[in-house]
This record gives sequence, structure tokens and C-alpha cells, in this order.
Amino acid sequence: MRKIGISDIEDIALGAALLGAGGGGDPYIGKLLAIGAVKECGEVSLIDVDELSDDDVVVPVASVGAPTILTEKGVGSNEFTKLIDMVGSYYGKKITAIMPIEAGGVNSMLPIAAAARLGLPMVDVDGMGRAFPEIQMVTFTIGGVSASPMLFIDEKGNMGLMETINNKWVENICRAGCTACGGSVVSTEYVMTASQVREFGVRGIVTRSQELGRAIRGIKNCPENMTPEEYFFDYTGGFRLFKGKIADVLRETRGGFNFGKVVLEGIGEDKGGHAEVDFQNENLCATVNGEILATTPDLICLVDTETFTPVPTDALKYGKRVLVVGLPCYHLWRTEKGIELVGPRYFGLNTDYIPVEERCKG
Amino acid sequence: MRKIGISDIEDIALGAALLGAGGGGDPYIGKLLAIGAVKECGEVSLIDVDELSDDDVVVPVASVGAPTILTEKGVGSNEFTKLIDMVGSYYGKKITAIMPIEAGGVNSMLPIAAAARLGLPMVDVDGMGRAFPEIQMVTFTIGGVSASPMLFIDEKGNMGLMETINNKWVENICRAGCTACGGSVVSTEYVMTASQVREFGVRGIVTRSQELGRAIRGIKNCPENMTPEEYFFDYTGGFRLFKGKIADVLRETRGGFNFGKVVLEGIGEDKGGHAEVDFQNENLCATVNGEILATTPDLICLVDTETFTPVPTDALKYGKRVLVVGLPCYHLWRTEKGIELVGPRYFGLNTDYIPVEERCKG
Repeated sequence: MRKIGISDIEDIALGAALLGAGGGGDPYIGKLLAIGAVKECGEVSLIDVDELSDDDVVVPVASVGAPTILTEKGVGSNEFTKLIDMVGSYYGKKITAIMPIEAGGVNSMLPIAAAARLGLPMVDVDGMGRAFPEIQMVTFTIGGVSASPMLFIDEKGNMGLMETINNKWVENICRAGCTACGGSVVSTEYVMTASQVREFGVRGIVTRSQELGRAIRGIKNCPENMTPEEYFFDYTGGFRLFKGKIADVLRETRGGFNFGKVVLEGIGEDKGGHAEVDFQNENLCATVNGEILATTPDLICLVDTETFTPVPTDALKYGKRVLVVGLPCYHLWRTEKGIELVGPRYFGLNTDYIPVEERCKG
Repeated sequence: MRKIGISDIEDIALGAALLGAGGGGDPYIGKLLAIGAVKECGEVSLIDVDELSDDDVVVPVASVGAPTILTEKGVGSNEFTKLIDMVGSYYGKKITAIMPIEAGGVNSMLPIAAAARLGLPMVDVDGMGRAFPEIQMVTFTIGGVSASPMLFIDEKGNMGLMETINNKWVENICRAGCTACGGSVVSTEYVMTASQVREFGVRGIVTRSQELGRAIRGIKNCPENMTPEEYFFDYTGGFRLFKGKIADVLRETRGGFNFGKVVLEGIGEDKGGHAEVDFQNENLCATVNGEILATTPDLICLVDTETFTPVPTDALKYGKRVLVVGLPCYHLWRTEKGIELVGPRYFGLNTDYIPVEERCKG
């Protein structure tokens, strides 16, 4: 167990925004929510899942919907209490701890805010090791854990609870409800025992986010024998896919998602080259000079060429200079079930999944 | 208390389809559900709300969605049990009786099926005295009763529960959820004490439906000094708006509703005339030779010119000969709050509400 204070939050938000792979929301709004809660209610205890007893109940807290809309709506402080009260009373069990469901600028931060306001510890684990756009896309689905009962609340106070026949139906119904509520809601799903979390969760993800964030912030002080770019790739274990200037952003908010494509013109050593990155909240596919270099479930991240700050899909702007980075995904995503859930064909891409390290070899 | 058997169901379905004002679904599918349940589980006790104690809990059971879709999906027998179990466990109170929320071919029948299968009595009351397309459109909303907790279940077994800040938000979220579930769900809402039902409900509506159905079925044996048409208007207290042949039907299923317009060419004494009836599940406005003769919340019903069988909006067909009938609505609908909820302007019609009896005077 260790305490998470305001400077930790800054680093976690930054690192999680990188792992958000373009999605997971703006780390600025996420940070404000988490820092506000910690200032008001005190630091949050971050615990390892091994510190819990097998039957302890852990609840992920997450926002569902388009990050662009969440930024406009914000999250009030009562929503967490109402949600957790409702889960608890529906379950008839005491909630022991909170956890994030994904890594991302907002969904890594909301659980910190919730944990602070509820006086509960947060577990250092999530269900993706990155961000994904749909509710069933978690390692817990691979493990056969039910997303139901799924609860959501909007900023007006409307609440919904779903019990469905499978996790994709939670996604279908909740997405529709979320759209009806204005495009963004706060939710809990995958209410689990600590032993379920232990078996299928991506462990240590909060700490990893924090270390990545710290490295990005300290990149100017990188070892003397490396350029900041070399240090960045060395530290993250990522693959350099392209460096370019944003020439075009095609964007559409539809069915509660941000769909789109960013077009890049090469700069520096990629001058004369051309790249495209398709996204649905998160980046799905990076094509460089006509060749696919990375696809979901591997992480495709755009970072600023100078500061290495992650650039989420909703902050893409004409003229911005970015580095496109590929990061290998969590090993469970590379199983048959994982590829079925979040592989390129699920998202309508006409390609098989090939790990980013293999694609980048040739 | 009296028992409802199969011949009662036939009459109730027929009369309720008239009160459905074009909506409320096909009485044929409704009847099949109710008759199947009564054959299997026995007759249903129809009780007056005065037979209940003030604190007894009454639950309406209804389908939400486009009647055309319900006809295709049907309703399985487990859905009622799951719904009522979920309401009961959520409330922590025993459900004493079932009631219909509206009069219509399906929603007058579903509660009979539910009551039979659950072994509960059905109360002779509803919340509309007709059918309306949206969930908040009940006399109970006028009385300040909350539609929440609203529960729904689809034919696959997906369930949702809503707690909202007002009854219109139940409509918004549930409609979206219903559309996600394929366009039709079975639901409970407005869980009430008997004393709330007594104060705001449309009392005796099942019995009225049955009497109307019996009169329509016996119309060939009407008194000798009257034509069947005269007898029909005398018995129903309705206004004769137009007689015509269906020349055109414009129809669109959108957002879980059937929207459209039926165009009529006059026949008989209306030969040479022209009429249009707009609908959103239910008929909203009848315009005859350019003049509005009836609008919501008064009932606009189309019946077959020979058999006087009601013709719901989803059974409108080119060439069919129909009589357009206006029936005065329940008195609570004519209050300021009633007009606000279900008056013509709510549905986008550019006219004030004027009672059908006044419109038909001139």
C-alpha cells in the first residue's frame, strides 16, 4: 500500500494518457477531477490486489461515452456515492475497493476521484492495460466474468442498471442509454471478487502509468548518451512508426463514439512519406506509406515530437507535429479470444492481427 | 371481483383496440398471449381498486416499442416472472396485483397474461383510458407519481432498471434501450400503492373495453330502429368524422415509434371529400376537407365500415374502407397539465386543443 497524492496524479494521468492509445479522454479534465477530490478528501491508498482477501468485492468506476462530450459535461461529486450505494444495495455486499477498468486520461483518474470521495482504497490493476472503446473489451470477458450488473448515472441524476445475457449486450444497451443521457455517463461494471481480479486483471498498471508519466516529464534530463527520442523508445519499449505533421483530421461523433482518421505528412527522416491512423475513440490502425505497421490490440500512440506528451484523438489538430509509436499489448489480448474481442477484424479492418514487433521487423 | 375467461378476453381485446386509438398494438397477438396464459394457468381475477388496502402494491405491465416489431418478436412466458421478481426484490415489497397502463390491443392483454402466469389479480384501471406512445403520458404523471423504478426485459433475457429525475427521462432512456434491444421490450413502471391508483387511475377501463367489444361483436343484432352505424355511435358516444377508402399510407419506423399518415378518399355520404389522419403509434389528428375535426388527447379511431372492428395504424392498407370516429378523452387529459403532456403541440401539431365535441359542433 502506498498513498497517491497530487504529484503522483500528475504522473499517472500523463502515463495513462499514453497507454490510452489516443482514447481514454483528455488527461487535463481527468486530473482536475482526481486532484479536486484528493484536495477535498485526502490522499488515496493504492493497494496491490494481493493485499485483499479472496472474497473482497472490487468495483471498477469508469466513464462511458465520447471523451469530447465528457469534457463538456464534467462529473459531479455525488455521482460516485450514488453509484456505489446502488451497487452495494443491489448486491447486498460491502464494496471493499475501487479499481480502474482501463488506462486513459479520464478513466485512470475517475477511480482516484471515486476512491478519495468514498474513502476506499484503489487497486493497482485494470482490465485492459490500455483503453478500448467498448464495455465488453476487457481481460475479464476473456476470463468469463460478467459485466452485469452494470450501473450508470448521468450528471442530471438519472440512473440505469443492466443485467444482460452477455457482456456485448451491456455495451449495446448502455451505449444507447448513454447516448440518450447526452453522450457520457459514469458507470460501474464487472463487480468482482479480489480473486477474479487477481486472475485476469492487468496488474501494476497504475504504477506503470506513473513511471511512464515520470519518464515523459523528465525526458529533457535523459542520459547524455541518448537523444530524448531514443530515451523515450528505450524506456517505453515502443516501436517508432512515423514522424509527421497532421495534414487532415476526419472526425465524426456517432452512436456515442468518436470515429475518424488522421492523415500525416512526413517530417524529419520521414520527409516525403505519408501515414494514416484510423480511430474509434482509440487508435486502431497505423498505415505508413501504404503498409500497415500496427493494429489493435497493440497500442498506437501519437505523442508530441518535442515534449513526448500523448496527443489523444480528440485533441488532434492540423499542423501539429507528432511521433507515431507502437507498443505491444497485454499478452491476454494476443490469445484467440482476445483477438476475437478486440482484434482488427472486430473493428472492420480487413487484416489479420500481426504483433507490432513482427510488423516492424521487415 | 369477477373472473376473466377466454370469451371475456375476446371482448376486452376488441374494445381495447378501439380505445387504442390506432395504437396499442394488434389485438390478435395480444389475445393469443392472454388466451395462452389463461388456458395454461387458469382464469384471472379482475378486481376493483377498492378491494385493495391502501398500501397494497400494484404494478402495471406493458410492452414498450413499435407494435409492428412486437408482433414479430412475441413475448415468452418467463419474462413476466423475471420482471416481477426483479421489481419485488428491488422494492423489498410483495406485489399484490397487476394492472394495465393503457388500453390497446396488446397492452390490455399483456397484464392478463402476466396476472394469469403470476397468479395475481388484475385491477380494473389504467393510466390513460386509451393508448399513448410515450411512457410519461399517464394520468399518474399528472398526479406526480414517479415512473421510476422502471424495469424492462427483452425476449433474449436482457434486463434494465431505471431511476430517473422525472418521467420524461424514463421515456428517453428506456426508448433508447428498447431500440438497442431490437425495438420492443416488456416493462413495469409506476409501481404504486393502491391509494395512488385509486386517486389518479382511469377506473373501470377493463370493463368498459369489454362492453365496447361486446357491442361491436353484437352490432348485427342492434335494435331494429337503428342502423348498425347509428347504434355504434350511440353506444360508444363517439363522433362521426369521416367515411372513406384508404388512398395512401405513409409510414416510417424511427426511434422505436411508428410514424405516419393515412390519406382517405370519401365514400358514401362523404363521397368527393378528403381526409388525413396523422399518427405516432396512435392517431394524433384528423383533418377532414382541410378542417381539423379532432386532435389528441381525444381518441381518433378508424373502424371497418362493415364490421366496426378497429383498424390499428400498423394494419392500415390501401383500399380498406374505414369510418373515422372521434371519442372524448378522460377528463384529466383536458386539464392544463394533461394538455401539456399529450396535447397537440407536444406532438408538433400547430393547433390548440379543442374538445372533439366542440370541433364537431360547427
